[in-house]
Amino acid sequence: MTRDWSSLMMTEAQREALLKSWQARTEQALQHYLPEETTTPARLHQAMRYAVLNGGKRIRPLLSYASAYALGVEAEKIDAAACAVELIHAYSLVHDDLPAMDDDDLRRGKPTCHKVFGDAEAILAGDALQSLAFHLLAHSLPDTIPAAQQLQMVNELAVASGSRGMAGGQSIDLNAVGKALNIAELENMHIHKTGALIRASVKLGALCSPAIDNAVLKKLDHFAKCIGLAFQIRDDILDVEGDTKTLGKPQGSDIARNKPTYPALLGLDDAHRMADELYQDALDSLSAFGDSADPLKALSRYIVQREY
Amino acid sequence: MTRDWSSLMMTEAQREALLKSWQARTEQALQHYLPEETTTPARLHQAMRYAVLNGGKRIRPLLSYASAYALGVEAEKIDAAACAVELIHAYSLVHDDLPAMDDDDLRRGKPTCHKVFGDAEAILAGDALQSLAFHLLAHSLPDTIPAAQQLQMVNELAVASGSRGMAGGQSIDLNAVGKALNIAELENMHIHKTGALIRASVKLGALCSPAIDNAVLKKLDHFAKCIGLAFQIRDDILDVEGDTKTLGKPQGSDIARNKPTYPALLGLDDAHRMADELYQDALDSLSAFGDSADPLKALSRYIVQREY
Repeated sequence: MTRDWSSLMMTEAQREALLKSWQARTEQALQHYLPEETTTPARLHQAMRYAVLNGGKRIRPLLSYASAYALGVEAEKIDAAACAVELIHAYSLVHDDLPAMDDDDLRRGKPTCHKVFGDAEAILAGDALQSLAFHLLAHSLPDTIPAAQQLQMVNELAVASGSRGMAGGQSIDLNAVGKALNIAELENMHIHKTGALIRASVKLGALCSPAIDNAVLKKLDHFAKCIGLAFQIRDDILDVEGDTKTLGKPQGSDIARNKPTYPALLGLDDAHRMADELYQDALDSLSAFGDSADPLKALSRYIVQREY
Repeated sequence: MTRDWSSLMMTEAQREALLKSWQARTEQALQHYLPEETTTPARLHQAMRYAVLNGGKRIRPLLSYASAYALGVEAEKIDAAACAVELIHAYSLVHDDLPAMDDDDLRRGKPTCHKVFGDAEAILAGDALQSLAFHLLAHSLPDTIPAAQQLQMVNELAVASGSRGMAGGQSIDLNAVGKALNIAELENMHIHKTGALIRASVKLGALCSPAIDNAVLKKLDHFAKCIGLAFQIRDDILDVEGDTKTLGKPQGSDIARNKPTYPALLGLDDAHRMADELYQDALDSLSAFGDSADPLKALSRYIVQREY
């Protein structure tokens, strides 16, 4: 797929450098915020660090930085919010991989947290990572953000993580295995399972701006909703098209589990088409932001075109 | 054990009625704040409600109400904070009972959450209950509490739940089974495992006061520290002295698992003595509050003398 990027003012190299700098910030901030391995309880802290510092793509933190960038907010003000969403994501993967859930032995080509630390410690590590996410939002946000707005950020993340967000989506997924979902039901599942946290990532980035306009927030949220769904469709497509080495997990594992997917329901071509349409819709909702939305656009492109 | 209660102005019956009214408030507020069983994802919501609405003693919420009462704050302002601490407690029990953790089939004489809903749904229910606790603090506290103070409450609960609080204590416990702990190590475990959340319960109640003095908060915190430890010692004593029917779990189960306990380390008599000393220390730290601390005193007495 080739696209016309001539309308974007930032060069591809500049965009790349900016995204890389945010990725580096994320790693550094996670290193800083995670409890040290040598402090009590050491084994739990080791499990938490192992689960988070694992070469993840950091798409959610990047969305937070890029969303704030679109509003002219400095990157150093986003660190705590970006880490908070990544900690929620990381905890969900730890619990997802447990034998009682997906029973996965590998995550990004490395043994999963429970394989290294045991199931009990992995459950606790996930639990403690969730608490840490809320600690960061309640304790480490810059004081340029009004306290009431910080509370709003806590609330956004709590709702996105909870039974009407990510955890709810996982429960819908759990109860859907082996059942025939229609496309609306599949979409509803993903809006909860992955969509809610992606929307929270974009929203939390925006809420790091000291004074945020509601109309602007709505546009960014529509953008996030579109790419959240596109992200999941891409995931499903990769499960069909990708290979185990690139994915870090066995290709075709969703099919093997009889999980409902977009390619299974729509066919591969229509799944590609749907991802493209969502991508265009996402770009359209950024039109008012001008060049400052270039990083968000680049991330959207990555999400729709990524190979792993 | 008989004690002299003549120094307390409130009659025993009045205290009882007050505590019962807070217990009823807690049940009603939990019913209200928990997502309805009929809403999507229904199964997860059912598991969450099953895990929380199970006839628990609600000691932590009662501590929040009693702590606020000592500062003259109306009970209706405490509901959200009281429920938040109880949700954290309830989620920890769900995860604790899992086969990968304590593998308990019964909780208060009824099948544990994973026995009814399966391990995967129970893990998610616990996760979602934690998120809901933070949602309540970020969304449902009365606006008489300044936003900055509400944030402080989120932070207190996040720290008390996390790796340096409850989850950390459980990890220490996990890694201590079968090992010979000394009394300092045992105390350190319990300060994390149960103490942190009990302290948060008292602190969150106090922080519902619109303007709270730091010296007052310190006194209440010392009180909470003492009764938190007394609570755990009482738990250990009951495991030796109680019977399965009253406890709702097999008596002697800690000993059977070779878990370190106060009676095992100190002997039963000294364990009783230590609980009594902590109880006296707790009462002493309330001396400045006068009659308004009667409910806190009654709760302390209950904690040290309870039979289940």
